Amino acid sequence: MIAELTVAARDGAARAGVLRLARGSIETPAFMPVATRGTVRALPTHVLADLRTPGGAAFDVLLSNTYHLMLRPGAEVVAGLGGLHAFAGWDRPMLTDSGGYQVFSLEPRVTDRGAEFASTYDGSRHLLTPELAVEVQELLGADVQMVLDVCPPLPSPPEVLRAAVETTEAWARRALAARRRIEDQSLFGIVQGGVDPELRREAAERTVALDLDGYALGGLSVGERRDEMLPAIEAAVAVLPDDRPRYLMGVGDPCSIVEAVARGIDLFDCVLPTRLARHGTLLTDDGRLNIGRAEFARDDRPIQDGCGCPTCARYERGLLRHLASVDEPALASLCTIHNLYWTLRLTERIRAAVRSGTLDALRREVGAAWCGTPG
Amino acid sequence: MIAELTVAARDGAARAGVLRLARGSIETPAFMPVATRGTVRALPTHVLADLRTPGGAAFDVLLSNTYHLMLRPGAEVVAGLGGLHAFAGWDRPMLTDSGGYQVFSLEPRVTDRGAEFASTYDGSRHLLTPELAVEVQELLGADVQMVLDVCPPLPSPPEVLRAAVETTEAWARRALAARRRIEDQSLFGIVQGGVDPELRREAAERTVALDLDGYALGGLSVGERRDEMLPAIEAAVAVLPDDRPRYLMGVGDPCSIVEAVARGIDLFDCVLPTRLARHGTLLTDDGRLNIGRAEFARDDRPIQDGCGCPTCARYERGLLRHLASVDEPALASLCTIHNLYWTLRLTERIRAAVRSGTLDALRREVGAAWCGTPG
Repeated sequence: MIAELTVAARDGAARAGVLRLARGSIETPAFMPVATRGTVRALPTHVLADLRTPGGAAFDVLLSNTYHLMLRPGAEVVAGLGGLHAFAGWDRPMLTDSGGYQVFSLEPRVTDRGAEFASTYDGSRHLLTPELAVEVQELLGADVQMVLDVCPPLPSPPEVLRAAVETTEAWARRALAARRRIEDQSLFGIVQGGVDPELRREAAERTVALDLDGYALGGLSVGERRDEMLPAIEAAVAVLPDDRPRYLMGVGDPCSIVEAVARGIDLFDCVLPTRLARHGTLLTDDGRLNIGRAEFARDDRPIQDGCGCPTCARYERGLLRHLASVDEPALASLCTIHNLYWTLRLTERIRAAVRSGTLDALRREVGAAWCGTPG
Repeated sequence: MIAELTVAARDGAARAGVLRLARGSIETPAFMPVATRGTVRALPTHVLADLRTPGGAAFDVLLSNTYHLMLRPGAEVVAGLGGLHAFAGWDRPMLTDSGGYQVFSLEPRVTDRGAEFASTYDGSRHLLTPELAVEVQELLGADVQMVLDVCPPLPSPPEVLRAAVETTEAWARRALAARRRIEDQSLFGIVQGGVDPELRREAAERTVALDLDGYALGGLSVGERRDEMLPAIEAAVAVLPDDRPRYLMGVGDPCSIVEAVARGIDLFDCVLPTRLARHGTLLTDDGRLNIGRAEFARDDRPIQDGCGCPTCARYERGLLRHLASVDEPALASLCTIHNLYWTLRLTERIRAAVRSGTLDALRREVGAAWCGTPG
C-alpha cells in the first residue's frame, strides 16, 4: 500500500498525522489547492510551492482535474511530457480526481457502462467509464487516483441517491480490476449516499469492503445545508477504518473544514479560496473582506494584521483596492496568494490544536467568524 | 544632486557604471520594467523583486506612469498611503514619467499653458501643465521625476518638431521653477527633436543649458525606423554631459538596447517585454518564440535551454503551450517572468561586455537574432 497513514495525535474524533505517498509525505489534516488544468488559476506553481509559514507548513499536495486534462491537452500528451508532476512543475505529491464531478455537472447520459457527456471545449461526445478513468489517471500518474463515481446533485430523490451508491460500488470494483499502476499510485474509493445518514453508512460499509487505499466522501457541498452535511460525514466516518486516510471532496470553507476535522476528516480540496480570490474576496480571521470596496481606498493596513503571507508582507489594502478598480490582472495572483496562505495557516493551526487537545477552542474561534454564513 | 553617476568602464561610446539615487543604486546600463498602475501587469511586485541572476543582477529600478496614477487612484491618495514606494510595495529606486507620453497619444489640445486631454477612464477633461506634472510627481515621490514634454508622433512636419523642442524647453524651465522636493528626488529633462540630427543636437544643447540631474531622449520609437533613430541618438549624446545619466525613453527591443548602449545610453524602459509576454511571445537568444504554436504541444524542453529564470527552471514548453490553448491567466505571469529575466540578463551581459571591452562581439550576437526585425 502506497498510502500509509500514521496518526500521531487525537482530539475527540479528530486526528493529526502524516500520510506517506509515493512522492512524499503530507501533514494531515491538509488542504489541497486545485490546479484545474495543471496550474492553480492565476498563480504560477512555483509561487505556490514557495508559500511557507514561519512554523514550516507548506502545501504538501496538489490536486488536478482529470476531466480537463483528458480533453486538453490529453492524457497521452501529459504522459509524453513526463507525467503530471513534470507537466505541472510540481515535485511533491499530487492527486487527480476521476473526472466524475465535472462530468456529472454536465448532466451526462449514465448507463451501466459509464457516463456519456459533451465536452465543454468543443461539444464532442465522450464516454467516461470506470476503466477509462483509471487508464487516464495512470497516464497522468498522480500519487493518488480516484475511482469514477456517480455524483447526484442535492436534493435528489431517494431512489436516485441509492442508485448512485449501487453504481458507484460497481464502478469501484471495475476500477480495481482495471488498475495496473500500483507501484507508485494509490487508489481511493468514494462514498456516496446524499445526506441520509443511513444510506451514507451503508455506502461507506460497502466501499470499505472493497479494501481501497483511502476513502473519500463525495456528493457533499452540492447544495445542502452544513447541518445536513455534518451528520452524513459522521455516519460515514463511523464505519471507515482508522488506518486509512479520509478525504472530504470539494469542501473548503473554513467552518466546514474545522467541523469536518472534528468528525475525523484528514484531507480537503476546494476551489473556494482561489475562486473567491479572483473576485477580490479575501479570507481573514474576522470573515470575508471584499477588497473592491471604496472604504479601503485610503487604507494603509495589510489585508490582515499579523498575516505572514507575501501579499500582506508587502501590499496595502489601498493598493489592492486600486488594482481592483482598474481591473489589474496581478490582483488575482495577490489575492490567491493570501487566500491559499490563510487556508494553509488554518490547517496548520488545526493540526497544532489536535496535538494540544484544544480543537474545541479553535472551533469556537473559527465558528464565530465563519459558521454563521453558508459554506 | 541626488542622481550621481559613476562611470566605471567604457567601451567606445558605451559606458558601464553606477547611478546613485535617493533610495539605492542602479547598475547601468539598466532596463526599467514598467509598473503602469503601480504594478507590472500580470506580475506581483515581490515576484519581480525576487528575480535575480546567478551573477547577482536584479531589477534595481521600477518605472510607474504618472498619467494613470494621477487619474486612478489620484496622487493625493498615493501620498496618503505613504507615497509610491509604499503603495507599489517596492523599496528600491523608482522613476515616474511626466504623463506627457500618454497624454500626447490622446491628441490633446496643446496651448502655452499645457496639454488638455480627456481621461481614458471616464472622459473627464484635464489640463496637464508642467507645474501640475511636478506637483503630482512630488506627491508620488519617486526617486526620479521627469519634466512634462511635448511628444509628437513620427513622422511630423519640421515645424511641429521644432515647436515641440521650443515648448519642451519652456516647460522644463517652468518645471525647474515649480520644483520643491529636492532632498530625495531628482529631475530629468527630455530632449525632443524627431529624427533630424541637427534638431536633436540643438534640443540637447538647449536642455543641457538648463542643468538638469539627467537627460532623457523622448519622441523616439514612435514609428520611425531603427536606422533613423540611431543617428538621432548619436547627435544628442554628442552634446550631453558625460557625468549625467542618459535615458532612452520607451525603447526596449533587444537590438535597440544594445545599439543604443553602444552610443552612450544608460537607461531604458519599455512595455515591450511584458506586453509580448501577455500575448505568449517570448524573448530568446535566437529571437522571438510564440508559445501558442502547435509545434510545442509535446515539447518537454524549457523556453530556452540554459535560461536561469524561474519559468525555465520548472516548466516545459508543452505545459506553457497547453496553458495558452486553454487561456489560463497564470501563463501571462510565467511569460512575463521569462521575458523580464531575459532582458535583465541582456543588460547584465551588456555591462560585462562594456567592462571587458567586448561589446562589439555582443552587438554582433544580439544583432544576428534581433536586428533583422523592426523594433
